[in-house]
Amino acid sequence: MLESLKEKVFKANLDLVRHGLVIFTWGNVSAIDPDTRLVVIKPSGVSYEEMKPEDMVVVDLDGTIVEGDLNPSSDTPTHLALYRAWPEIGGVVHTHSTYATAWAQAGRGIPAIGTTHADYFHNEIPCTEDMSEQEVKGAYELETGNVIVRRFEGINPVHTPGVLVKNHGPFTWGKDCAEAVHNAVVLEQVAKMSCLAYAINPDLTMNSLLVEKHFSRKHGPGAYYGQKKK
Amino acid sequence: MLESLKEKVFKANLDLVRHGLVIFTWGNVSAIDPDTRLVVIKPSGVSYEEMKPEDMVVVDLDGTIVEGDLNPSSDTPTHLALYRAWPEIGGVVHTHSTYATAWAQAGRGIPAIGTTHADYFHNEIPCTEDMSEQEVKGAYELETGNVIVRRFEGINPVHTPGVLVKNHGPFTWGKDCAEAVHNAVVLEQVAKMSCLAYAINPDLTMNSLLVEKHFSRKHGPGAYYGQKKK
Amino acid sequence: MLESLKEKVFKANLDLVRHGLVIFTWGNVSAIDPDTRLVVIKPSGVSYEEMKPEDMVVVDLDGTIVEGDLNPSSDTPTHLALYRAWPEIGGVVHTHSTYATAWAQAGRGIPAIGTTHADYFHNEIPCTEDMSEQEVKGAYELETGNVIVRRFEGINPVHTPGVLVKNHGPFTWGKDCAEAVHNAVVLEQVAKMSCLAYAINPDLTMNSLLVEKHFSRKHGPGAYYGQKKK
Amino acid sequence: MLESLKEKVFKANLDLVRHGLVIFTWGNVSAIDPDTRLVVIKPSGVSYEEMKPEDMVVVDLDGTIVEGDLNPSSDTPTHLALYRAWPEIGGVVHTHSTYATAWAQAGRGIPAIGTTHADYFHNEIPCTEDMSEQEVKGAYELETGNVIVRRFEGINPVHTPGVLVKNHGPFTWGKDCAEAVHNAVVLEQVAKMSCLAYAINPDLTMNSLLVEKHFSRKHGPGAYYGQKKK
Repeated sequence: MLESLKEKVFKANLDLVRHGLVIFTWGNVSAIDPDTRLVVIKPSGVSYEEMKPEDMVVVDLDGTIVEGDLNPSSDTPTHLALYRAWPEIGGVVHTHSTYATAWAQAGRGIPAIGTTHADYFHNEIPCTEDMSEQEVKGAYELETGNVIVRRFEGINPVHTPGVLVKNHGPFTWGKDCAEAVHNAVVLEQVAKMSCLAYAINPDLTMNSLLVEKHFSRKHGPGAYYGQKKK
Repeated sequence: MLESLKEKVFKANLDLVRHGLVIFTWGNVSAIDPDTRLVVIKPSGVSYEEMKPEDMVVVDLDGTIVEGDLNPSSDTPTHLALYRAWPEIGGVVHTHSTYATAWAQAGRGIPAIGTTHADYFHNEIPCTEDMSEQEVKGAYELETGNVIVRRFEGINPVHTPGVLVKNHGPFTWGKDCAEAVHNAVVLEQVAKMSCLAYAINPDLTMNSLLVEKHFSRKHGPGAYYGQKKK
Repeated sequence: MLESLKEKVFKANLDLVRHGLVIFTWGNVSAIDPDTRLVVIKPSGVSYEEMKPEDMVVVDLDGTIVEGDLNPSSDTPTHLALYRAWPEIGGVVHTHSTYATAWAQAGRGIPAIGTTHADYFHNEIPCTEDMSEQEVKGAYELETGNVIVRRFEGINPVHTPGVLVKNHGPFTWGKDCAEAVHNAVVLEQVAKMSCLAYAINPDLTMNSLLVEKHFSRKHGPGAYYGQKKK
Repeated sequence: MLESLKEKVFKANLDLVRHGLVIFTWGNVSAIDPDTRLVVIKPSGVSYEEMKPEDMVVVDLDGTIVEGDLNPSSDTPTHLALYRAWPEIGGVVHTHSTYATAWAQAGRGIPAIGTTHADYFHNEIPCTEDMSEQEVKGAYELETGNVIVRRFEGINPVHTPGVLVKNHGPFTWGKDCAEAVHNAVVLEQVAKMSCLAYAINPDLTMNSLLVEKHFSRKHGPGAYYGQKKK
């Protein structure tokens, strides 16, 4: 079932390696089928060299395995929490990419200080709070998703398609899994440039008008970047 | 029309990728035809893998499309402002290359602190001022060009073939689009070395005599670097 | 003798190059045969391009050459000290990988500040003390091993499979030489992310509950990461 | 003439590119023939893609071209000053490699803070003084060589085979041009690790006994690293 979506999720997982965001098995991509609301996700701990499209695991939104011989990624409950909270997203990515993870380990959101950032992420890319003892010792991966969703109260996840989980690493999402991977690449690049920019000038500033301009140039009713969709 | 120039601009755009200055569609190269004063530029938002020479768009100096089915780069008005202001330049490049963009986000020009810099850029590589509300909300890409031209009052753009647009990224130029790409590569390397040098010693200095020596060794009447042009 | 183990040690040495941890001859891998307690190790100062599986040297735990025409790695006495002290390990790796060596040169252990770290290394990756005059001028490579073993008093080497030798570089180990190489790659990545994280926020913190959670998720009786071993 | 040495110098120049030390034409290698005391050096400003072994230029120790149609590297007088001062060296390399150049731009020698450094360079890798107005405006490239030689008063150039020219970049040397390239690679790696180590701990220290131990382990009468020369 969902063979075409499995192929897309499989390819998106390999794209993480190709873009240098993932070594070993340190990343996972999922996508949700809009009709059945079933989720296709990478199996846990399988190397990218050996992985095949048919190894992708199909789960429902409660985490029950619907198809697949392998365990789904141990981060599956986090992915599912995001799909349940935000019906408008179609794909989720988790990596330990170097610079985004460094910001997560620093416990700091990435402020909007450049147009590269503003082209893709509206305002700060937030960092979650410390998890409580109950959350860490309980259903940890589910609670990780809940911590993300809670952090986005008052933030539109479509306009800010990524988050840093404190001391852990980034999650990104998008309208499908390819866009979620694209956003993961952008986040890593933005994380690197911002880390360097603050090293050069800790007191740097950005005009908030410019943030709005770049975001609205690519998103929303007045967007004029790229080619007209046919 | 201008098929040979389209081929050069196409190749120069791919060179940005080959030199690691650009991911996705984050860069654009243009060149001006000296006879017709028409400008050939990359189309907007087309991936480098799919782009062909015949996709390049031809515009006049007012921005009217003269040939091409695709929208020109959204940064076209910035390119055109530079060509109108500086008839001596033949090609323009815009990237979001990592270290140059970090300096732009830091809002700092790159001081001349090494001979690598002085071989190509006379004195500081300047950073533009914040744009006003009117400029951001008005003809933004045109105003970006105007901000650059204004920043170069009193600076010879042939001797300092690059600029950092604050919170945005670098533009470079040259006698043709190949030289503009070459200068974009040099700018990125200079930006990286300077970022590191200040991390090692925030109080570093450079003898200004050495700046002049290296610049004049490669440029001007007494140049003696390289082979004699045949 | 031990041809199969020589093949594994040979391959593990090349993997160091493939993962970007080693240039020239700056690294060495060994493995111990559980039955004979003989150790197979890379020869000293032989380039990776010319090295063949049959060049691997076999020594006993006292350092006597049992088979091989070449000198074993000059770091052999360090490897042997670890095998003698910790019968539970099966492979040892030494590199001068960039970021791990930078921490070693800084004389600082790498604190557990991220889940990437906690997935593989329980708590801090320790840095050894300065060696005494007697140790440096005496049996230096043996004493390097002794300094490591002394540093691990009260630390379980299976749970923390790596160390930084002060002003020198990292050693890692594992149940076999492939796992020791894997841990060397992880250590380098963790060293890079931690270096960047402290640059972003020198006052960062990590909830120790999260350290325990991630370590126990992959290790020990309740581990649930990856696929069930068949 | 000297066709075999031309081949070696040609290959050594390409090795600079292969090791990532040089982009465009930003580097040059020379070697001296021990019998004739003639020097073979890279031509000036010729791209590495187009360069052929027969393009190498032969000059005598006074800089007179003995064979070759092209101009020798503009840095030739610097190379020759080193060969005249130090008859024991056989090859010289100049690059603008990123981290070594950053230290040169910072105006700081690289302190001996690790065994990687001590294995190749005895004590600090020195940085030259600012050049005087007379030196910059006079025979600049010759004076660059003189400044290096002056900086090495009291330092053995065979034991410390490299220098940073202030605000410019590194020169390295060796018994032949292959060893000079090897030392250029080591210098860049040492420069990177030291830059990072000081970022982690600005107050780091190294036991000077360890410096002596590692240097003497690879050099001098008691050396025991690598294989016995046949």
